[in-house]
Amino acid sequence: MSKRGRFITLEGGEGVGKSTNMAFVEAWLKEQGLDVVRTREPGGTPRAEAIRGLLLDPSFDEPLHSDAELLLMFAARAQHLAQKIVPALERGAWVICDRFTDATFAYQGGGRGIESDRIAQLEQFVQKGLSPDLTLLLDMSPDAAKERLEGRLLDQQTQRDRFEQEQITFFEAVRRAYLARAAAAPQRFAIIDAGQPLARVQEALAQTLAERVTAWQ
Amino acid sequence: MSKRGRFITLEGGEGVGKSTNMAFVEAWLKEQGLDVVRTREPGGTPRAEAIRGLLLDPSFDEPLHSDAELLLMFAARAQHLAQKIVPALERGAWVICDRFTDATFAYQGGGRGIESDRIAQLEQFVQKGLSPDLTLLLDMSPDAAKERLEGRLLDQQTQRDRFEQEQITFFEAVRRAYLARAAAAPQRFAIIDAGQPLARVQEALAQTLAERVTAWQ
Repeated sequence: MSKRGRFITLEGGEGVGKSTNMAFVEAWLKEQGLDVVRTREPGGTPRAEAIRGLLLDPSFDEPLHSDAELLLMFAARAQHLAQKIVPALERGAWVICDRFTDATFAYQGGGRGIESDRIAQLEQFVQKGLSPDLTLLLDMSPDAAKERLEGRLLDQQTQRDRFEQEQITFFEAVRRAYLARAAAAPQRFAIIDAGQPLARVQEALAQTLAERVTAWQ
Repeated sequence: MSKRGRFITLEGGEGVGKSTNMAFVEAWLKEQGLDVVRTREPGGTPRAEAIRGLLLDPSFDEPLHSDAELLLMFAARAQHLAQKIVPALERGAWVICDRFTDATFAYQGGGRGIESDRIAQLEQFVQKGLSPDLTLLLDMSPDAAKERLEGRLLDQQTQRDRFEQEQITFFEAVRRAYLARAAAAPQRFAIIDAGQPLARVQEALAQTLAERVTAWQ
């Protein structure tokens, strides 16, 4: 039986550069000769991506109740864990995931105001103790992130999803919740200053990954 | 402020005649001059109906994990309660709902084998104590129900949904779970023998409703 793989998550608000840096983390791990599965939340499997569609869709003429949003997140997560993440880890692959449960605490907790205890109840229900081995938190001020995001949305002429349509106070609450999560689990989290030039951000990512990979071997 | 309305649910497996009898219950209550809101689960609001679509869709090339199914059911329920059921009850309307949480205990519990305690945890999470005032359980043997259902599907040439595709042992487990729920809450449940001719079923429904409406006044 192969050794169980490691589970790494990348977290952060809108516009912090997650996609670019996901690609960097993936490439870096592959250079070490590791079997890497790259995925994202909400989503990651056909059914979970369909749930993602419901979560992000801004076109319904009906607000989505915060509990319904939270339960949809965990429904997608249960599917993703069962169909993709756990089987990959068990066969020895390393899984890197664009957002995971810390995002639920940040967005549905910090952003929407759902009590952490209620989120933790569903976390336990679905994950039964499973947690990332390392969480890379791309941190920057929501003001600066907003500028980046607006540039990108303008370039791509895409419509904003339900979360991208939120106001700056929402993203400030999301950031505070992420930082509080990191402070409560300093062993698991590495906070990366995402406001730096990209080359510096990726130096910081590479250094963190090198330290952890060495420590785990 | 108007008096809070009553919440009545209609339960039963596939092919027991729920649609026909929902229409009967609705008409009977309206004859008493009541303001009646008729709805169904999973679904009942635009977003909850979209979740229903995901739950019933048999076309995905991926099994739906039982926890994901359960969480989707409760996500749809949270939305339905917040957007439709609770506001209707609060303005004094009577709500009649085609399936509710007893169906979750019967299908995801009895049928899929999820422990009742785990379902009860989500029930408390979403409903916070809210429960139907009366549950009409249309009960008949799955064998007889299957014949009816097959006739109907043949007539309408519709594709079976994910639940209708299940086997007879699944529906036997669903029925047992429904009857166990009824035995545990005899004050709330009325078991109606749905194997009788329709006129007799509706006599039994009318009698039950008359007794309850009188008792509640």
